[in-house]
Amino acid sequence: LVAVWRTAVAFAPVPRITWEHGEVGLVKFHEPGIFNYSSLLMSEDKDTLYVGAREAVFAVNALDISEKQHEVYWKVSEDKKSKCAEKGKSKQTECLNYIRVLQPLSSTSLYVCGTNAFQPTCDHLNLTSFKFLGKSEDGKGRCPFDPAHSYTSVMVGGELYSGTSYNFLGSEPIISRNSSHSPLRTEYAIPWLNEPSFVFADVIHKSPDGTEAEDDKVYFFFTEVSVEYEFVFKLMIPRVARVCKGDQGGLRTLQKKWTSFLKARLICSRPDSGLVFNILQDVFVLRAPGLKEPVFYAVFTPQLNNVGLSAVCAYTLSTVEAVFSRGKYMQSATVEQSHTKWVRYNGPVPTPRPGACIDSEARAANYTSSLNLPDKTLQFVKDHPLMDDSVTPIDNRPKLIKKDVNYTQIVVDRTQALDGTFYDVMFLSTDRGALHKAVILAKEVHVVEETQLFQDFEPVLSLLLSSKKGRKFVYAGSNSGVVQAPLAFCGKHSSCEDCVLARDPYCAWSPAIKACVTLHQAEGSSRGWIQDMSGDTSSCLDKSKESFHQHFFKHGGTAELKCFQKSNLARVVWKFQNGELKAVSPKYGFVGRKHLLIFNLSDGDSGVYQCLSEERVRNKTVSQLLAKHILEVKMVARIPPSPTSQ
Amino acid sequence: LVAVWRTAVAFAPVPRITWEHGEVGLVKFHEPGIFNYSSLLMSEDKDTLYVGAREAVFAVNALDISEKQHEVYWKVSEDKKSKCAEKGKSKQTECLNYIRVLQPLSSTSLYVCGTNAFQPTCDHLNLTSFKFLGKSEDGKGRCPFDPAHSYTSVMVGGELYSGTSYNFLGSEPIISRNSSHSPLRTEYAIPWLNEPSFVFADVIHKSPDGTEAEDDKVYFFFTEVSVEYEFVFKLMIPRVARVCKGDQGGLRTLQKKWTSFLKARLICSRPDSGLVFNILQDVFVLRAPGLKEPVFYAVFTPQLNNVGLSAVCAYTLSTVEAVFSRGKYMQSATVEQSHTKWVRYNGPVPTPRPGACIDSEARAANYTSSLNLPDKTLQFVKDHPLMDDSVTPIDNRPKLIKKDVNYTQIVVDRTQALDGTFYDVMFLSTDRGALHKAVILAKEVHVVEETQLFQDFEPVLSLLLSSKKGRKFVYAGSNSGVVQAPLAFCGKHSSCEDCVLARDPYCAWSPAIKACVTLHQAEGSSRGWIQDMSGDTSSCLDKSKESFHQHFFKHGGTAELKCFQKSNLARVVWKFQNGELKAVSPKYGFVGRKHLLIFNLSDGDSGVYQCLSEERVRNKTVSQLLAKHILEVKMVARIPPSPTSQ
Repeated sequence: LVAVWRTAVAFAPVPRITWEHGEVGLVKFHEPGIFNYSSLLMSEDKDTLYVGAREAVFAVNALDISEKQHEVYWKVSEDKKSKCAEKGKSKQTECLNYIRVLQPLSSTSLYVCGTNAFQPTCDHLNLTSFKFLGKSEDGKGRCPFDPAHSYTSVMVGGELYSGTSYNFLGSEPIISRNSSHSPLRTEYAIPWLNEPSFVFADVIHKSPDGTEAEDDKVYFFFTEVSVEYEFVFKLMIPRVARVCKGDQGGLRTLQKKWTSFLKARLICSRPDSGLVFNILQDVFVLRAPGLKEPVFYAVFTPQLNNVGLSAVCAYTLSTVEAVFSRGKYMQSATVEQSHTKWVRYNGPVPTPRPGACIDSEARAANYTSSLNLPDKTLQFVKDHPLMDDSVTPIDNRPKLIKKDVNYTQIVVDRTQALDGTFYDVMFLSTDRGALHKAVILAKEVHVVEETQLFQDFEPVLSLLLSSKKGRKFVYAGSNSGVVQAPLAFCGKHSSCEDCVLARDPYCAWSPAIKACVTLHQAEGSSRGWIQDMSGDTSSCLDKSKESFHQHFFKHGGTAELKCFQKSNLARVVWKFQNGELKAVSPKYGFVGRKHLLIFNLSDGDSGVYQCLSEERVRNKTVSQLLAKHILEVKMVARIPPSPTSQ
Repeated sequence: LVAVWRTAVAFAPVPRITWEHGEVGLVKFHEPGIFNYSSLLMSEDKDTLYVGAREAVFAVNALDISEKQHEVYWKVSEDKKSKCAEKGKSKQTECLNYIRVLQPLSSTSLYVCGTNAFQPTCDHLNLTSFKFLGKSEDGKGRCPFDPAHSYTSVMVGGELYSGTSYNFLGSEPIISRNSSHSPLRTEYAIPWLNEPSFVFADVIHKSPDGTEAEDDKVYFFFTEVSVEYEFVFKLMIPRVARVCKGDQGGLRTLQKKWTSFLKARLICSRPDSGLVFNILQDVFVLRAPGLKEPVFYAVFTPQLNNVGLSAVCAYTLSTVEAVFSRGKYMQSATVEQSHTKWVRYNGPVPTPRPGACIDSEARAANYTSSLNLPDKTLQFVKDHPLMDDSVTPIDNRPKLIKKDVNYTQIVVDRTQALDGTFYDVMFLSTDRGALHKAVILAKEVHVVEETQLFQDFEPVLSLLLSSKKGRKFVYAGSNSGVVQAPLAFCGKHSSCEDCVLARDPYCAWSPAIKACVTLHQAEGSSRGWIQDMSGDTSSCLDKSKESFHQHFFKHGGTAELKCFQKSNLARVVWKFQNGELKAVSPKYGFVGRKHLLIFNLSDGDSGVYQCLSEERVRNKTVSQLLAKHILEVKMVARIPPSPTSQ
């Protein structure tokens, strides 16, 4: 009768500020009649943002995306549309050309692929003329057939690495390299890829000094059906896989297949609370000059019992590398003739190590290319693509867990606060068109603000960060268009207290101009500026932004006294003659928990009413006077109707 | 970049009515200084409720539990308390005597066990003198050492069957029969019990005609660590186990151990939504004259990602029976020397069937007792106590899924509505002191009402139903006391519409006395009574309960017009001169979403205001007029202050 396992937990760091759509300055781009703005590509040199949508590609000014520079359409012919419809697909939605690959090919051209009414096709887009070259390459394996299927790709040295499905049904998954001299692909076998949903791919170049990594490596992130775990129904598992750029495939075994394909589990969980995040939504690679190594930031949701939970886990490159280069492998074993179980492989591992890139050691042993790797090594990697060791996140736990939200995309900006400290600011988009900006302060998550990017609460499909000095923006694509947002809305904070309480690493208070300024935009010296990431407002000497009102009311009437406070973390307190008022009927009431109502006015209600906000920051309460109202209740004969307070 | 697995779902059938503590008539029992009222036992003949608490047992009048009939204390001696404290336990909380077993032994005595400062002890309580006999039996294996450990027990034919832990640490789980002539217990081995948390036990007697079941069977319900499933961390799994009453143990193999112990998985999940409920909280056996067979109602919460989810699944006795009597077994296999995996056993099964009760077939083959079962059968059941087949719920899915709540206990009352239809009414207690009453109507869950039983929002530890004709009550025990609640609050519905809209099978409207009456309490004929479980109010001819008010207000003032509506499913609509009012600032405002505020009154605001409630029931909207206000705005010189509406 005693319940031992009752560990319901609540993770809900509330965004401090909620900016409704239209409340802050956002720039929007959308072309009438064009939908599904799913692919974004930035040209930092040209200050141009390329946008791949359904049946169209656009070039817009990255500093003001409402300014369209070029456009090109790529429509499906009526003939093709009809053939697609004959196969049972929708002419209005599925049998169109969804741009899914938009990659830089050279300084003057882009590589573009679209679903093309279930006949995936690729072409080159000339950036000077902004016209397609009409190459009409077969896009099979580079771009999905079905716009509903998952895809990811990255261009490395003019060769496209992609993860998607290889057939009409979407039942044959593939990770491949599209290369004229050495095309490679994955085996079509459950141990290699088991109903994967591709999320992200990127290249990590070998270190310039050549000591550590001796080859460029391409990492793929996806969620697939687990072979190693079992529960009441099919379990999904998030994975990172990697291949080597120098891979040439095997000579006999694994001919034209990857010899360097290895994959491992990504762990993102909180065992103490029973939280398991096993559906990968997006990955961002954070690279920054001050950062020792790249860090993979990943957004997850749970597969099981997801009634609105998201998490962010971060993984260092070296943790991922270590699992592939030194970790144990898994093997499958047949139990009692009919069951396949995956367990740790404890036997001898062939040399060179299966799945390793060709490094100096291999070269010293005369293995100069994957083509002359011994059959034992190739057969082993063919049968054992899955590592037994898992990739564990930094600090062994999620950086952030948020309730009542489904995050879809992530970008991270590493920025320096006024005191020189670096902060990794996470920008997380939701399936309801919002953007959350979160930062870790003293090991706690602080969601600085939530911005409603899209009025119609549509899911954000793609997110792109541009963090060039003086041009820091987030770009978000949805079904209806693209939105450009600045990284901070410092100017919206009208008092020094508000500016400091925001605990936004981008914002500081300038006493000289009495304004909250954006660090990376402000000109001139930052001397005297006030910023305190612990929320300590004691340096604020400027008087608060309090508003002042005087009102006259008649006996027996009702007064409404207004008060404005944007912070969701603050409590509004009303004081009358310095005593706190409680919302006790029938005398007082609150409208929207902020504005005060006073019913049945009498002489005794005359006096000074103050609205204060109290915000708790690190166990300290910061009080701010927001408004002061002086009320005079008069027994009058015939004066004009008393004004309602504004 | 496309997220395929984003299946956040919201299950939240809102209770139609919320009764705050004190709003409805509840009877309470608690003794000053006594806590942890965890054990409840009803004597239907004597109309007495026995209550086991910490260091005390009480007998109270079941019709009015505030009336205490008897009390007896069972305190731990100072000496024992000190010894317990020396072992590192808390003198104030743990080293006390928590009553965990309270079972009927005969018509004049109870069997009582307590934790007794980590020295579990049992005694007989004479019901005539209400004194303990001072037997001081060793309670090991019947009652846990630690009040934090799980326990369950049931008295069958004067022998106590119990599930709990056998040692001080709580590390040795046991299901045992305390019997002088044939004590039996489980093997101490992981395949038998793996860190179980016991929840419930009950006996199902053999059918009187002796055709089907040929022995009484005792069923145990618990959650334990899974051996057959694996995920990122330890997975829990809910189980039902059963033993036969006629079991005598084996002669050599399984000597003094169960030869009939088998266990199986309980499934409670919604694969389409990724919902898995694997932590059992409580079980109730529904038996009723009209019911073909007993039904097990079970309350679950999820282990993984539980941010407030509960479910109810129901299992028929025959489904459970079928798994044990005809299901496949599981076997463990060693994979690659070091891994133990559990898979389906497909080999030959010995005869008589391992784990089966001694039935006529066994007897015909000369196996008259478990003592002469062949060694092959005994060795098999010793090694294969776990079934491969699972026990699936009625309709293959949960009867109820509720968000933002943790249910702790369940009782179910099968009741007949006015039209003769039977309804299984579920009473579910929460970890915040509330009771939900839920019923399935047209395949949808309808939570009739939520009652706050305990003011302090404490978890409900025990729940008991008494459904004797004319004495239907729910009793709930918590840390602070026991509460007695009627099964319905029909009298609180003041109009025919409200009475019918409640869709409460216990309630009907009597036009004769113009009141909502309780079916099982009302005297005389039910002719003319109105009840419609589909919420159709068209039979209601009595005029609605509308209230009527007249007000005079001055120019420029603010009016507050009140409206009362208890239903959480209804929307309140205000009409002025028959047009619907919207809460558009600055003219109108709402207080608590029900009362209307009219600001800055002028001549044009004079007129008739009506408050209506609209409640959607099965895609039909039922409208009720709740209040009518006539407002007159006057430009006055000197009249007394205008009254605020009440």
